[in-house]
Amino acid sequence: MTSTTRSDCARRDDEDPLAGFRREFLLPEGVVYLDGNSLGALPAAAPARIARTVEQEWGERLIASWNDAGWWDKPRTLGAMLAPLVGAGPHEVVVGDGTSANLFKALVAALRLNPERRVVLGETGNFPTDLYITGGVAEIMGAVERRVDADRRAALAGALAAGDVAVLLLSHVDYRTGALRDMAEITRLAHANGALVVWDLCHSVGALPVELAGCGVDFAVGCTYKYLNAGPGAPAFVFAAERHHGAARQPLTGWHGHARPFDFSAEYAPADGASSFLSGSQPVVAAAALEASLDLWQRVDLHQLREKSLALTELFIESTGSAGLELVTPREGGRRGSQVALRHPQGYAIVQALIARGVVGDFRAPDVLRFGFAPLYLRYTDVFDAASALVEVVRGEEWRDPRFTAAKAVT
Amino acid sequence: MTSTTRSDCARRDDEDPLAGFRREFLLPEGVVYLDGNSLGALPAAAPARIARTVEQEWGERLIASWNDAGWWDKPRTLGAMLAPLVGAGPHEVVVGDGTSANLFKALVAALRLNPERRVVLGETGNFPTDLYITGGVAEIMGAVERRVDADRRAALAGALAAGDVAVLLLSHVDYRTGALRDMAEITRLAHANGALVVWDLCHSVGALPVELAGCGVDFAVGCTYKYLNAGPGAPAFVFAAERHHGAARQPLTGWHGHARPFDFSAEYAPADGASSFLSGSQPVVAAAALEASLDLWQRVDLHQLREKSLALTELFIESTGSAGLELVTPREGGRRGSQVALRHPQGYAIVQALIARGVVGDFRAPDVLRFGFAPLYLRYTDVFDAASALVEVVRGEEWRDPRFTAAKAVT
Repeated sequence: MTSTTRSDCARRDDEDPLAGFRREFLLPEGVVYLDGNSLGALPAAAPARIARTVEQEWGERLIASWNDAGWWDKPRTLGAMLAPLVGAGPHEVVVGDGTSANLFKALVAALRLNPERRVVLGETGNFPTDLYITGGVAEIMGAVERRVDADRRAALAGALAAGDVAVLLLSHVDYRTGALRDMAEITRLAHANGALVVWDLCHSVGALPVELAGCGVDFAVGCTYKYLNAGPGAPAFVFAAERHHGAARQPLTGWHGHARPFDFSAEYAPADGASSFLSGSQPVVAAAALEASLDLWQRVDLHQLREKSLALTELFIESTGSAGLELVTPREGGRRGSQVALRHPQGYAIVQALIARGVVGDFRAPDVLRFGFAPLYLRYTDVFDAASALVEVVRGEEWRDPRFTAAKAVT
Repeated sequence: MTSTTRSDCARRDDEDPLAGFRREFLLPEGVVYLDGNSLGALPAAAPARIARTVEQEWGERLIASWNDAGWWDKPRTLGAMLAPLVGAGPHEVVVGDGTSANLFKALVAALRLNPERRVVLGETGNFPTDLYITGGVAEIMGAVERRVDADRRAALAGALAAGDVAVLLLSHVDYRTGALRDMAEITRLAHANGALVVWDLCHSVGALPVELAGCGVDFAVGCTYKYLNAGPGAPAFVFAAERHHGAARQPLTGWHGHARPFDFSAEYAPADGASSFLSGSQPVVAAAALEASLDLWQRVDLHQLREKSLALTELFIESTGSAGLELVTPREGGRRGSQVALRHPQGYAIVQALIARGVVGDFRAPDVLRFGFAPLYLRYTDVFDAASALVEVVRGEEWRDPRFTAAKAVT
């Protein structure tokens, strides 16, 4: 049991330099939302921004808005707004397509930059789409897929030392365990062994500072609907390091990635910078929500964000210790993202019982309870209350209620 | 000069069985919008539908909406709503990604189904993204790209007769000329020569009845933001004929295309039906606009639509004859889509002068003026007025005004 009291938490909320951001989100009453690592909350500015895009830009100005409202350039302007959140230059990031498609592009581009080698090294426990897309890329490129436990450094080093790895694909933060990988060190290790790296930032962007350029990363992808709060299925992004611009060639060569799209030329010529990673038209209405969110993110101090994130996860770990669940997430703060994962054979039912109490986390098969901590809209008191609820649900065996054991989750 | 008067047109509007649909769109005042073949008008039901998705489903119900609001299944439910518009079965169409990505998937799947052959036959004048994506596919698959003029039947027959064509990619309606291709006959010709076919429906879906199953088509793709009015950059769709289900394998194997995605299995297993053509999460907010539009489309009689479309384009061709512009679109109704293209060396300036008068068409380099006719919201009187404006702009040389000759179009 932790010695932190609810009053301690209330005091920390009062002193929290990020506390004001909570008012910039529309959150349901009576809910502690610990699932922002799956779908982020709605920015308060988003509905009006979306309505403007729909009713004025689309409804009244119609086709003219491709120019006048900047629709055509949204993948670049939003990419430039997102770039500082991942430590990239404004021309190194474009927003568009989904994470899966962008992974496909980045992996193919990396394989083409390293043509003497045929192995794509992935990680055993990566999110399924990363595994599946890697398989799709390996098949179409005639490459070989290999997997390693990314959290066993010796195994990773050994796999890279084989000398045949063209590209290493890792998640910066593991979607299930919440483990944070050392991007700088692993990227260095990969490069020292002649491999390029693609990082999946889905669970780190908006959760902690990411330094893609500082770590010398080659390519990265990520989604915007988790910690970046851009809404369900919002467009993803792709990062291509400046040193690869011009040389990096992705295969989904649609007209938005053309150097001079309005020439309607019969031959493809890739655009400059990360723009060559664009394919076709992007969902402009979805981009409006992302823009509202990125406006807000321009004001976030990422080091304050990380500090609060660590404090929240630490508080949750400490305060749930007495429930006796196995901690899956690394205990050491420096090795975890903004998420706490716990293991219990009845994890699904426990998550349902918590939801019934207004504490929303999620479940990942076979036995993992996931709790995400979005520092912009969570309070210390929220985390205290959520932890108390979890302890009560487990110790009181509330989860045994058939309401909670019966249904089958989808997400 | 036509003998049709404005009163004749007003009478036809009164008798138009589709006239009521105009009230279901929000159109700007004082504008005759002839660019619905580029970006369709806003359905009146869309803003509220989008607001519900954003404020209630996302804002209040958050992650639960992936189940409760049917977000997870939207690519399939919207695909099933769209299917009758293209003469397909409900399991043959899914909505998601963009046209470019779907073209990539369909072409790769077709090449894999015809592994003895390596040629992708495209058309010289196809929309750039079709050309560029074909190039991207050819490179990654080690295939050979060849192009032919799709409107020269002998050339097309000759190219197919070479006996090495794995897949033929054509646009059902040419984006520039508005020429409608005979899907049944060309598909038969391709099959007789051992080739599969991929049809691009961007300029035919929602403009005329499309009979994919009836024509025995293998694959098709299309966008939803033109005649289907789903908003800028709205998700595209892909059709895979039932006989190819199971065997057709596309390379963007993301987790939404998995047979049992929530098993979080380490190995990919394709879903049944067209669902295997899905990749990652789709923009749910954009899908809300599509749903509002498809609701409306369920009530449209596609034969009435075609009849009105032909009457509108015929009226425009007749009524603009005295302007002396070269008609690019086939004069014979059965060979044109819902668009009229005219050629003039000062096409760009003429289009600008028309826009200044509230008649919105568009320009395609180097010299084509395009006018699209969306039968659901255009009246005969609108077309009469637009044609009169074009005749006056050309005969009075209004386009010479430096306001119209100066600027550079983007779309």
